[in-house]
Amino acid sequence: MAIKRRNFLKSIGYSILGSSLLLPKKSTSSQKTEFNWKMVTSWPKNFPGLGVGAENLAKIINILSNNRIKIKVFGANELVPPLEVFDYVSSGGAEMGHSGAYYWKGKSQACQFFSSVPFGLNAQEMNAWLYYGDGLKLWEKLYMQFNLVPRPAGNTGVQMGGWFNKKINSPKDLQGLKMRIPGLGGEVLARAGGVPITLPGSEIFTALQTGAIDATEWVGPYNDRAFGLHKAAKYYYYPGWHEPGPTLECIINRDVYNKLPNDLKHIIDISCKAANIDMLADYTSKNNQALQYLISENIIIHEFPKKVMTFLRKLSMEVIDEIGQTDSITQEVYASYKKFQKEVIPWTELSEKSYINSRE
Amino acid sequence: MAIKRRNFLKSIGYSILGSSLLLPKKSTSSQKTEFNWKMVTSWPKNFPGLGVGAENLAKIINILSNNRIKIKVFGANELVPPLEVFDYVSSGGAEMGHSGAYYWKGKSQACQFFSSVPFGLNAQEMNAWLYYGDGLKLWEKLYMQFNLVPRPAGNTGVQMGGWFNKKINSPKDLQGLKMRIPGLGGEVLARAGGVPITLPGSEIFTALQTGAIDATEWVGPYNDRAFGLHKAAKYYYYPGWHEPGPTLECIINRDVYNKLPNDLKHIIDISCKAANIDMLADYTSKNNQALQYLISENIIIHEFPKKVMTFLRKLSMEVIDEIGQTDSITQEVYASYKKFQKEVIPWTELSEKSYINSRE
Repeated sequence: MAIKRRNFLKSIGYSILGSSLLLPKKSTSSQKTEFNWKMVTSWPKNFPGLGVGAENLAKIINILSNNRIKIKVFGANELVPPLEVFDYVSSGGAEMGHSGAYYWKGKSQACQFFSSVPFGLNAQEMNAWLYYGDGLKLWEKLYMQFNLVPRPAGNTGVQMGGWFNKKINSPKDLQGLKMRIPGLGGEVLARAGGVPITLPGSEIFTALQTGAIDATEWVGPYNDRAFGLHKAAKYYYYPGWHEPGPTLECIINRDVYNKLPNDLKHIIDISCKAANIDMLADYTSKNNQALQYLISENIIIHEFPKKVMTFLRKLSMEVIDEIGQTDSITQEVYASYKKFQKEVIPWTELSEKSYINSRE
Repeated sequence: MAIKRRNFLKSIGYSILGSSLLLPKKSTSSQKTEFNWKMVTSWPKNFPGLGVGAENLAKIINILSNNRIKIKVFGANELVPPLEVFDYVSSGGAEMGHSGAYYWKGKSQACQFFSSVPFGLNAQEMNAWLYYGDGLKLWEKLYMQFNLVPRPAGNTGVQMGGWFNKKINSPKDLQGLKMRIPGLGGEVLARAGGVPITLPGSEIFTALQTGAIDATEWVGPYNDRAFGLHKAAKYYYYPGWHEPGPTLECIINRDVYNKLPNDLKHIIDISCKAANIDMLADYTSKNNQALQYLISENIIIHEFPKKVMTFLRKLSMEVIDEIGQTDSITQEVYASYKKFQKEVIPWTELSEKSYINSRE
């Protein structure tokens, strides 16, 4: 990326005029901004966890680049609607975006594997697949078709199963259930006889309160409390079988990324990696506090009955297996994901699972 | 950090002589190294996971700083013995170190809480305490006394329980057991009637093979295979109750760190954060492969019986409670750790635990 000479000289605190020629400022001072970028996001501006994560990422890149990259973050609908982030960054309207890959299943079903899959990998396993399996390589291959570079940039951890106004005692309670649940989880619910509905976050509360829907999932206590969902439903179910560790994405316009100098490319990559661990730590530290608050508001917390989980797991495997065959890139991604899951689970069983179960 | 003018000019590809005055190179080219640092580590050079993690961290800092910081990594005993890393960086012999905080319990028992505690926080919870609880702030306060700045820079995840040449069927099988197990785990074993022994990694194999010890813990399949421990013991037990998610540390000499320009301070901090998630992903992806190999070598994998785990958990709580009272900073750290653990576990139960148990 060529930069104008005058800007360059100014950027290093160097005046070509007069006696200051030989008096450069220290290189420690903030440099001139070379790249003024926009980041569009799918989250309400500064929304806990997700929106804050996007803001933090932008700040980190600015600091690490010593001001050479400055990023203005836009909340959902400020510049484009939440679900137009992908196209907008792809076409260069914004240089960068922050969202979740499952929103782009209309581009390719393969996208869903890079966010979360029902009964799939948890956060720790996802990161292992992305960074040390073929995950990120395949994600780059997929998004290259759309002129985008993807980077994992956050994770919520295992989500909650959702808010219900009726108890779920057995698989038959899912029949006819009108639930806001997007993506693969929704397809599984449909197969269970339910009616999946897609609504943006901002419309969930009213739909639940008016009875337009019987149930909804959103994220977990920290985010669900922010939307006031406990004021519109009685029962709060766990675990979030449909989103066991969703990765959030930072997407960068590929033309823009490729023209960056090497150090700035790496500053973006490493900042995203730090944002990935940071968001999960944020959720892990805050969810319980929100959970205790919800309990104090008389919310009843239930674990899904075992027979419901077994039923949903069986249907999930069917749905994913079908979706995994839709096109050639999806086949490739699914094969890699499935193989990794098969290999990593025996280790999770001996380590995290055995340990967590021993601790109570 | 003031830099010499000539070096500065050279660093930006700028010649003050002749016609090249107005022809600066692009700022994208590699800059002149301002800081030539040494990193001493407690690991064999390039040892899987731990040593590789230290090398990767040094490389990332070099790239993000566009060559302004260059770090030469030293394996254990190359410059100082593995357990002298702390003192060496503290006194400024090296600018940076890579190790584990529990090795420094001789300085203060508080150190142990920043690596791993028997039946304590797992990796995800540790990161939540460090980054979003008071963990890192307290760690900085503790290490300030030693002229050091600490940064979390890796995690192995839940380790294995260790290698045994006799079966552990009940608590009485721990009596008289000579086991290589350092730190708090060793103190718990002693209270169970065993004989904890501290040996550096390099001496474990021979001690186990000759019968000088009956058992040993090390890390997990990926690392244990590298030491050939399966050739010296029959039974491989899980889970690693004594090290459920050890944080590795990067320590920086405080005088050196404080003189850095702001962007370089942040480049170090964020690189450590990225190294933290990266090492856990490395272990998570590699452990199962090594585990399958060990099984193919006729190793017998056992889960510790429930009554053994319950016994060890009870003793662990006693040991930690006593250690947590030793000095005022340890009291402060223990109070924070204990409070965080009490608050985070209910969330882990509803999320990771419930989910992992539903997946089989």
